[in-house]
Amino acid sequence: MCIEIIGKNAKNAKTQISQLSTEVKNNILLDSADELMKNVGKILEINKQDVENAKMAGVKKAFLDRLTLTEKRVEGMANALKYISTLTDPVGEFVYGKTLPNGLIIQQKRVPLGVIAIIFEARPNVTADAFGLCLKSGNVIILRGGKEAINTNIAIVEIFRKVLEKWGIDKNGVQIVKDTSRETAKQLMKSHKFIDVLIPRGSATLINSVIENATIPCIQTGVGNCHIFVDESADFKKGIDIIINAKTQRPGVCNSIETILIHKNSISILEELGQKLLEKNVEIRGDETVCSIITESIPATEKDWETEYEDYIVAIKVVENLDEAILHISKYGTNHSEAIITENYSNANRFLNEIDAAAVYVNASTRFTDGGEFGFGAEIGISTQKLHARGPMGLKELTTTKYVILGNGQTRN
Amino acid sequence: MCIEIIGKNAKNAKTQISQLSTEVKNNILLDSADELMKNVGKILEINKQDVENAKMAGVKKAFLDRLTLTEKRVEGMANALKYISTLTDPVGEFVYGKTLPNGLIIQQKRVPLGVIAIIFEARPNVTADAFGLCLKSGNVIILRGGKEAINTNIAIVEIFRKVLEKWGIDKNGVQIVKDTSRETAKQLMKSHKFIDVLIPRGSATLINSVIENATIPCIQTGVGNCHIFVDESADFKKGIDIIINAKTQRPGVCNSIETILIHKNSISILEELGQKLLEKNVEIRGDETVCSIITESIPATEKDWETEYEDYIVAIKVVENLDEAILHISKYGTNHSEAIITENYSNANRFLNEIDAAAVYVNASTRFTDGGEFGFGAEIGISTQKLHARGPMGLKELTTTKYVILGNGQTRN
Repeated sequence: MCIEIIGKNAKNAKTQISQLSTEVKNNILLDSADELMKNVGKILEINKQDVENAKMAGVKKAFLDRLTLTEKRVEGMANALKYISTLTDPVGEFVYGKTLPNGLIIQQKRVPLGVIAIIFEARPNVTADAFGLCLKSGNVIILRGGKEAINTNIAIVEIFRKVLEKWGIDKNGVQIVKDTSRETAKQLMKSHKFIDVLIPRGSATLINSVIENATIPCIQTGVGNCHIFVDESADFKKGIDIIINAKTQRPGVCNSIETILIHKNSISILEELGQKLLEKNVEIRGDETVCSIITESIPATEKDWETEYEDYIVAIKVVENLDEAILHISKYGTNHSEAIITENYSNANRFLNEIDAAAVYVNASTRFTDGGEFGFGAEIGISTQKLHARGPMGLKELTTTKYVILGNGQTRN
Repeated sequence: MCIEIIGKNAKNAKTQISQLSTEVKNNILLDSADELMKNVGKILEINKQDVENAKMAGVKKAFLDRLTLTEKRVEGMANALKYISTLTDPVGEFVYGKTLPNGLIIQQKRVPLGVIAIIFEARPNVTADAFGLCLKSGNVIILRGGKEAINTNIAIVEIFRKVLEKWGIDKNGVQIVKDTSRETAKQLMKSHKFIDVLIPRGSATLINSVIENATIPCIQTGVGNCHIFVDESADFKKGIDIIINAKTQRPGVCNSIETILIHKNSISILEELGQKLLEKNVEIRGDETVCSIITESIPATEKDWETEYEDYIVAIKVVENLDEAILHISKYGTNHSEAIITENYSNANRFLNEIDAAAVYVNASTRFTDGGEFGFGAEIGISTQKLHARGPMGLKELTTTKYVILGNGQTRN
């Protein structure tokens, strides 16, 4: 089915989906969760095929991890849908209102964005999260997942479409683009006639393609070349725990760290830190000092400072001071999540103020940048841009507002 | 000076401008207002030359109106700067904060967007408004005005740059692109390395060029093909007053109306309405019924329903009912401002809910869609898109947020 037909279908479903009551939306979410669990065997079988194909294509280990579903992960998807049903419906909230001196009543009302398209890569759980969040916020969704997970995604979307139909609702409230060629992705990026907002979730290559090609307003998400800076006054124990967590707890995701910066007066942390990283099978790419202390390190090149490994690899660099750390992060960071390990009050504040990122941390793991951890329910993505939403995006970020103005004949002087 | 140098200059000024105290920003605004008035003679002289050149180039009357400065209009610009100095500084506000069960403190802090570029057309007062609003919200601004007002704009910007310098601040906090070729506009649209947000203000052609070419996150503004629907139950007196105001009070701006839709059972309004419009020298383009009642009308074509005249021209069409009116507006409207004249409660509510626009009105003139009228101070533009800001944009809309997270060693499970 061509993108234009998918776009028209979505636009036609928009009014009905936007006007659904909270109760109906919640019932659909709970029903969808049930149907996911009823069909778990079928989903896992189809996913197994996708995983086999991806293995044969020789994809990276971290990628396979994101692609693979288990009964527990499907249950996680179902639970996310149930959880979304418990969240407050943002639609219809009045966020502002006043009466002007001339008697005109101005109110700002929260309304759905309309039609949202999401281009994403390996993780099939995005399919369920995105459907749940978009439905709850009254939006129609068009999903365009990666080719590796296409069969899994189609199976999951078919379940949701059947649930919509059962409730007498246009099943085009959720559609999936079955042709996963680059061509259809580009067509989707240019379909501003039908689509209100485009959310790309995935690699830097995808995001760059969207920046170059999209004519639809976008929310860029997820590219995370994140850093931890170990300051002069750092508590080494906290620092090592936080770094190991931020690097190895789930290296394939965007809020894990890629580069560690060490104040020159804190290099005595390197021995223990290096040992712990190596124990976790993390490959270390270091500058000269790092390589001389952690002898297992590989010399880092310019490219390492730029790379989001999403893998068991980390780059380590020794810096002169906080200024150099801030400069390095400004140059190579992707405005996602950045952390400082310090006991110095003024340095903590300078880092929080001067680092330009969606989330800035003192003495905590960057892995917390997550809609679930922040208490927003499942997230649709982590915005690394400045317009509309910054950081984890939940239900509220999937709405816009309109001004509703009530008069009794007012004209402007 | 090439766009890349302008971009680098802006990026270099960003940290200083973002950290200015409210007091310093207000002093600069007041000083800028004073300097505008001190230099009013010089500004008017330069503007006169721009106006002469535009006349020779044969521009439209409404365009000339927007280009021309008078002492009163310069005073208006100065007063806008003074008024902005009285508004609350949005920077540094904490809009959200909580402590997670693990002790992590999450706060969402309002921060400037960074570097904002504005591409605009005739009105030189945009130069002052944009500078004032961007400075007060801690942003660096790059202005790229139209060629017709270029000398006026350069003169105004030079005044502001001197004030910045006087206060010991990087004068590149405000820059103007002196080369007004299409080429520099396109380069600007692709400078996402240096610019955080692009705001185009002007014609549909400009907005479309931005949609096609920009790689910077944009806020589309100002294209206003606005409608008023006279319902079956309309109070004709209110209706005529509102229509005359919305069409003729200032036809060259985006929130004036371009098409009037009349319920078939309300066509008896046409005689008086036509007479009043003609008295105001408004050219009427009507469908068959309209032409048969207002004999001075010219038959309307499909193109009339699509056109934002920004002039003393209006299109009028008779429709079967509210459904047809909503359908017509959905098809031809630009999601700016739409109004219904009705005494029917349910029809008013249907119109407010089903029309997808930045501002929807019952029984009032669309001319109220304006930052000043809404009480936001001067506005930087009227967003007709759904992301980030919708409707008039004031100071708050020129900021973003960042998550500031304070820990004491937390790691994620």
